Amino acid sequence: MTEAVRVAAERIRRLEVQGARNVAIAAIKALEALAEETEAKTREEFLNELAEARGLLFASRATEPLMRNAVRWIISQVENSHEKQAAALARRVSSAAAQFLKELDASKECIAEIGAKRILDGMVVFTHCHSSTVTYLLSKAKKEGKTFEVICTETRPAFQGRITAKEMLMLGVKTTFIVDSAARSFIRNADLVLVGADAITAEGNVINKIGTGTIALLAHEARKPFYVVTELLKFDPATVCGDYEQIEERSPEEVWKNAPEKLVIRNPAFDVTRRDFIHGVICEEGVIPPHSVAEVTRRRYPWIFI
Amino acid sequence: MTEAVRVAAERIRRLEVQGARNVAIAAIKALEALAEETEAKTREEFLNELAEARGLLFASRATEPLMRNAVRWIISQVENSHEKQAAALARRVSSAAAQFLKELDASKECIAEIGAKRILDGMVVFTHCHSSTVTYLLSKAKKEGKTFEVICTETRPAFQGRITAKEMLMLGVKTTFIVDSAARSFIRNADLVLVGADAITAEGNVINKIGTGTIALLAHEARKPFYVVTELLKFDPATVCGDYEQIEERSPEEVWKNAPEKLVIRNPAFDVTRRDFIHGVICEEGVIPPHSVAEVTRRRYPWIFI
Amino acid sequence: MTEAVRVAAERIRRLEVQGARNVAIAAIKALEALAEETEAKTREEFLNELAEARGLLFASRATEPLMRNAVRWIISQVENSHEKQAAALARRVSSAAAQFLKELDASKECIAEIGAKRILDGMVVFTHCHSSTVTYLLSKAKKEGKTFEVICTETRPAFQGRITAKEMLMLGVKTTFIVDSAARSFIRNADLVLVGADAITAEGNVINKIGTGTIALLAHEARKPFYVVTELLKFDPATVCGDYEQIEERSPEEVWKNAPEKLVIRNPAFDVTRRDFIHGVICEEGVIPPHSVAEVTRRRYPWIFI
Amino acid sequence: MTEAVRVAAERIRRLEVQGARNVAIAAIKALEALAEETEAKTREEFLNELAEARGLLFASRATEPLMRNAVRWIISQVENSHEKQAAALARRVSSAAAQFLKELDASKECIAEIGAKRILDGMVVFTHCHSSTVTYLLSKAKKEGKTFEVICTETRPAFQGRITAKEMLMLGVKTTFIVDSAARSFIRNADLVLVGADAITAEGNVINKIGTGTIALLAHEARKPFYVVTELLKFDPATVCGDYEQIEERSPEEVWKNAPEKLVIRNPAFDVTRRDFIHGVICEEGVIPPHSVAEVTRRRYPWIFI
Amino acid sequence: MTEAVRVAAERIRRLEVQGARNVAIAAIKALEALAEETEAKTREEFLNELAEARGLLFASRATEPLMRNAVRWIISQVENSHEKQAAALARRVSSAAAQFLKELDASKECIAEIGAKRILDGMVVFTHCHSSTVTYLLSKAKKEGKTFEVICTETRPAFQGRITAKEMLMLGVKTTFIVDSAARSFIRNADLVLVGADAITAEGNVINKIGTGTIALLAHEARKPFYVVTELLKFDPATVCGDYEQIEERSPEEVWKNAPEKLVIRNPAFDVTRRDFIHGVICEEGVIPPHSVAEVTRRRYPWIFI
Amino acid sequence: MTEAVRVAAERIRRLEVQGARNVAIAAIKALEALAEETEAKTREEFLNELAEARGLLFASRATEPLMRNAVRWIISQVENSHEKQAAALARRVSSAAAQFLKELDASKECIAEIGAKRILDGMVVFTHCHSSTVTYLLSKAKKEGKTFEVICTETRPAFQGRITAKEMLMLGVKTTFIVDSAARSFIRNADLVLVGADAITAEGNVINKIGTGTIALLAHEARKPFYVVTELLKFDPATVCGDYEQIEERSPEEVWKNAPEKLVIRNPAFDVTRRDFIHGVICEEGVIPPHSVAEVTRRRYPWIFI
Repeated sequence: MTEAVRVAAERIRRLEVQGARNVAIAAIKALEALAEETEAKTREEFLNELAEARGLLFASRATEPLMRNAVRWIISQVENSHEKQAAALARRVSSAAAQFLKELDASKECIAEIGAKRILDGMVVFTHCHSSTVTYLLSKAKKEGKTFEVICTETRPAFQGRITAKEMLMLGVKTTFIVDSAARSFIRNADLVLVGADAITAEGNVINKIGTGTIALLAHEARKPFYVVTELLKFDPATVCGDYEQIEERSPEEVWKNAPEKLVIRNPAFDVTRRDFIHGVICEEGVIPPHSVAEVTRRRYPWIFI
Repeated sequence: MTEAVRVAAERIRRLEVQGARNVAIAAIKALEALAEETEAKTREEFLNELAEARGLLFASRATEPLMRNAVRWIISQVENSHEKQAAALARRVSSAAAQFLKELDASKECIAEIGAKRILDGMVVFTHCHSSTVTYLLSKAKKEGKTFEVICTETRPAFQGRITAKEMLMLGVKTTFIVDSAARSFIRNADLVLVGADAITAEGNVINKIGTGTIALLAHEARKPFYVVTELLKFDPATVCGDYEQIEERSPEEVWKNAPEKLVIRNPAFDVTRRDFIHGVICEEGVIPPHSVAEVTRRRYPWIFI
Repeated sequence: MTEAVRVAAERIRRLEVQGARNVAIAAIKALEALAEETEAKTREEFLNELAEARGLLFASRATEPLMRNAVRWIISQVENSHEKQAAALARRVSSAAAQFLKELDASKECIAEIGAKRILDGMVVFTHCHSSTVTYLLSKAKKEGKTFEVICTETRPAFQGRITAKEMLMLGVKTTFIVDSAARSFIRNADLVLVGADAITAEGNVINKIGTGTIALLAHEARKPFYVVTELLKFDPATVCGDYEQIEERSPEEVWKNAPEKLVIRNPAFDVTRRDFIHGVICEEGVIPPHSVAEVTRRRYPWIFI
Repeated sequence: MTEAVRVAAERIRRLEVQGARNVAIAAIKALEALAEETEAKTREEFLNELAEARGLLFASRATEPLMRNAVRWIISQVENSHEKQAAALARRVSSAAAQFLKELDASKECIAEIGAKRILDGMVVFTHCHSSTVTYLLSKAKKEGKTFEVICTETRPAFQGRITAKEMLMLGVKTTFIVDSAARSFIRNADLVLVGADAITAEGNVINKIGTGTIALLAHEARKPFYVVTELLKFDPATVCGDYEQIEERSPEEVWKNAPEKLVIRNPAFDVTRRDFIHGVICEEGVIPPHSVAEVTRRRYPWIFI
Repeated sequence: MTEAVRVAAERIRRLEVQGARNVAIAAIKALEALAEETEAKTREEFLNELAEARGLLFASRATEPLMRNAVRWIISQVENSHEKQAAALARRVSSAAAQFLKELDASKECIAEIGAKRILDGMVVFTHCHSSTVTYLLSKAKKEGKTFEVICTETRPAFQGRITAKEMLMLGVKTTFIVDSAARSFIRNADLVLVGADAITAEGNVINKIGTGTIALLAHEARKPFYVVTELLKFDPATVCGDYEQIEERSPEEVWKNAPEKLVIRNPAFDVTRRDFIHGVICEEGVIPPHSVAEVTRRRYPWIFI
Repeated sequence: MTEAVRVAAERIRRLEVQGARNVAIAAIKALEALAEETEAKTREEFLNELAEARGLLFASRATEPLMRNAVRWIISQVENSHEKQAAALARRVSSAAAQFLKELDASKECIAEIGAKRILDGMVVFTHCHSSTVTYLLSKAKKEGKTFEVICTETRPAFQGRITAKEMLMLGVKTTFIVDSAARSFIRNADLVLVGADAITAEGNVINKIGTGTIALLAHEARKPFYVVTELLKFDPATVCGDYEQIEERSPEEVWKNAPEKLVIRNPAFDVTRRDFIHGVICEEGVIPPHSVAEVTRRRYPWIFI
């Protein structure tokens, strides 16, 4: 098998690639490289190479359903093709990859358009961490001439909230910045909460940056609508089959450099937000209740479930 | 009036003195200095000086009821004294100060003794920020031979959780350290939550380090007992009279050095924990429901309410 | 374009036509008039006229998805027809209109049949405002020989509860009548709550007469089952696309004639009932959870989503 | 016994006197008249007359603890007096009456002063019905130069909200007026809820105008602080002894004139607000949790419990 | 009609057959016997016999949707067959019966495989009553080498929890056994709750052994995930049509033999667990939210809804 | 020390004496026997004997605060006496014992009188286990001519609910009897819940027969008032000092005779009911919120706290 897949899997594992979308693109590119460089002759040989690549990529990082779905899509397209020769099948990889990325872009655009309608003039939007889907939605709303404010949390340990804050300021949006622990004090000033997602599970729960579950609970306590903004392509079909969504745990150094010896530092990157705290999922199928995410995904992307 | 009071008030204002107990001691010392150096002749003159000192000290920092109660106690003792001469009254300052500190020490001891009984072998105790009352209680439990673990949050922006972690490790207690946002993920492993207090209000709510209110809500969600460990001397009688407990707001630099211009950084030091989320207040009167804190304080420290 | 559409839109706007069903019928009749009187020659001309009519009718009043769905249905049927000539297409309007009304009648009958089974002998049914779907259901139950009581609220500002009360008395049902504010005191005597709907949103929330959301909360507090009785044809597909369901605001005069100058009277006609408070939606597809309303509607009425 | 008591009791019964304060004054005046006109000679005779008067006044209307406490106070003062002669005791009635009214006025003033501190610039205050204690508090805040807005409900069936609205407009306060059923839609815009009380019970619950319990629940749902503004003299000691606070039921005509025959109209004037929904009681003892109302009342007004 | 159906119906009625699966098998066998012994000549005659048998079996016991669905499936297969002769149709009964049982076995296997993934090493699983689907899942997990503990309730009145306990001990699982009333004290030690189901309703609620609804509430209170483990074949389509799921009431003797005369003993066998307390339904379609059970069942078993 | 104390302590330990009141009486009698038979000469000797007796009795059984308070009372009376000679002090034991029992009887009478007022004609009262205080209250209500029904749970493992049922039937009260697990299904038919108490803790929580905490939660879920009927003499002052109320665990045989080997049977006799689920405590001081139980007890029985 081509070296490209091994390298990509390794870079993903080492967190050199970050963000669900970038990780997916890295995997797609690796499969394209594999298709270009393959020396497989038969359909069977090529499918075996793909299967091996899939194994490496799937194992590279927990909580990356978008990447896995990209791989699933490409392989399913190759399998569905009736071509017998490896070369023809290899070309199918590249067209499937292009389709996936196009769908992903279209989804992002569609989500921004739909979600921007939920932003009304004068609103205060609360957000956590940095989600390119959320900030794209907000930039859309801003470009449509809406005036709104944003409150964002710093999002320890990696301070991604600072990226969100900078992007908002560049859009000219009035932005308030707080530590994560201050969320309960400021959510009462908000009209709406928008967060992204790293994965969606079979039960309709959402996996997102550590702290999201708490903010959802706080929004519920204060009767503020809480929306998850995400592509359905982040649905994880393994959860349907009983698997728990694995929560990636990152380096203790992120939390405390030079911490005392013997101290146990736990640094899970994500947590679970219960479907009951989610007013709606803003996705490429519109605004939907989290409870029907699995059925809607099955309707739109049946190949995910095979 | 003596310079000492002005200096003390200024140091308190500039956060050069920190921690409710230290701030109270600084104010007490300033009043003792005033009493030593006063040139007042008459009772009236001395009382006027004290009133002026009180004004300066009260204005030095929001959310410092322990310091204010120390000042209230000393002045009340002076006022209750029937001495006519300033010199005699000045001596009363020093004995009142000594009494207050003794009471404070006795309270801390008593609280530790009572609270340590709530720690059973094998328990996991969750705490937030650093409270010397809480860590004293835990050291007491440890010295009694109990084995327990501690989970502590880092407590942004000032990372006081690191102090707690270090103290726990020095006691030989197994300690797990997490970012504030991970509290909801780890509180399910805990058996008990213990936090300190900066102030207690008339309604029975508790003011403590930002994030405490959220942790109380999380404990409630997970049916974990949440206790506030505090001297009743932190009761703020001004809240009885309708004042809101003022929440001190600290420097934006604590949150983000070199933050982008125009970014509004909000940095409240404390938040409010609703009485309904507090299983009990562990104080010098024993374990009491937060709902009766005002009545119990009135019974024990009637001079606070004058 | 025919005058009939303009007149109908104007009458709807002025509230001269009331009730979701009546408004839908008015719009249907207007389209039928347009079809009869059209001077369009080509398919294109006729479709343009329909599009213009649609624009007028859609703009006539907020919160009228049934009317909009009627218009959507008729136009979709015309568009699906392969006829080239305007005259033939115009005839299609009338058959589509007839189909829609037939479906609406069948739905009402079906809903009454299903819903009547939820009424058991001896039950006390709580209702709010006047919904012809609800009262038809109750009359069905009564005709089946069931004995039950009804509690109804007066429903300020327009006192539609009086219509409900009169209808119930005419059926021979023992009826208790209360002001809206007394709902919490009397809901504990009820076994079941039944209300109608003006619109259903993508998230599975229900828009109904102002006060309904509160009654749903009260039913939840007292553990009483709360059912919404409605045709799925009231589903608003615009909410899928991110639009908020607009809440119509009516004349201040309805609330207070000769109110003091400067007083701001707000008179929203509807409010939102959260899906979490709704035990089930009783509709032409049976009893369903509100969470799946969008998917069920999509299955039954796919043309709504085009 | 003097006719005055009989007349007063009758006027109270017929609702010719309204408002807790006015009813109490009417009863006090009646006792003063009795004291002036009495022909009793002995202590025993006079006490018998008072007991009879008490019986008549207590029976005149449900839900009037202020009036009952006024009567209790006057009689307790007479009983505590060591005078043997009826004439001397009769004079005691008048001084006790004066004391009660003075206390009542002082309480109102004190409550307004305390409560006004809870109004901050820019706040939106939500209120229900008309409470002279609440509007006095708001006028105090206004006179102190604070700028705030008020949202008030119309308060069916008797529209007392209109009185509140007029008073607020006269103060120059921006006022929004809604039907009772719209409370859930507007409470999210409020910062604070203030209501009065007709009675306080042993458990710490509050009896107030029908609809108050619902608004408290709505405030709880939306995490808005809900305060009851009331004199502790409205505490009903009979509830300590197990009696339920009786809820007065008024004429059906208030709800619907010329209602259909056979319609059962229920018109309770009050409902119960659970202590758990009340952030604090603003009373002459300051801001207190409702849970300790009985103990605080016992401390301040021990004669109520005899 | 053959005697076998009458006998089977009677045995079911008398509780001589117990357990949803056994009852279904008894009904299937009765239909097979009927098919073997029928003397019907024509399609019409045979269908009439089946309809009569269906009537008898459906009436034999409340709360048995699995049995009813078995009967529905067999009759639907006969009706779908285009055979004209009774003999050919009768053979269809037997093949349909075999298919049903095969599907049922496959479902059980599939559920165990999916559900076993939710059991992690070291978990404590709480369960109620005895469900062969749950114990099969646990035995699967045990065979996969997982170590876990079980807490089970005795499950009055028939002590089915003892069967569960014995099965768990035979598997070598550490088992704790408590009275039903102790569930709230022990659920805090659990990581997961697993229960079976007797029926699933249109709203997504679950009918199971009396006490299950309480345990679901307790799990919710303590933030413990609560899963229902069941075949979708237990979905009751009559609830879609408005029927309440009937709750079978068993003999008072089960509760108290030789109870005092006049004592009213109520002994419902089942209760309702609200969908909001159910984290997920573990079924042959994977883990799904209860809210979409009806739609998923309709997708997989459309014949249930005819 | 006399043998009587040793015997009494042993009988209490072996559960030969049951019921808080009976256990208290046994301890009182033992102290009286000790006082009669003592050979102590001096005050000191006698006090030492009492202290030793106290130690034995306190250690005999967990969760028996009434007995402990009885012992506390008697010893405090002896200590307060200024007598120097053992003989005189011994006589003091007997008068203190008599006083305690008299107070206990008066409390029971007073509680019944107060509580009976909460029973209105037509009410359905739900109760759990057997509490002589509750049944005495109900018999009082019955004797006052009130008509009401009772629902009682069987109360596993010891079936004390059967005693309640029999007592109710003897009073002529219509009684419904259910298994504990059916509480959630029947509590919706109830108007009021009344339970007894074995102990009251510093936080205002109540310890009572296993299952009570669940019923309180169920009452809360269904918005039914839940009252605890108890003497304040069951307050446990050790909980003020930080001790947990110990929950007595009884023989596994009570739960399952001849249970399989290796099965861990847990049989706690009591559980904790959270103060938030308790509408009121009906005690000798009237109806009070559980939150102020400690303060009220301190006011009425100050000697408990010494």
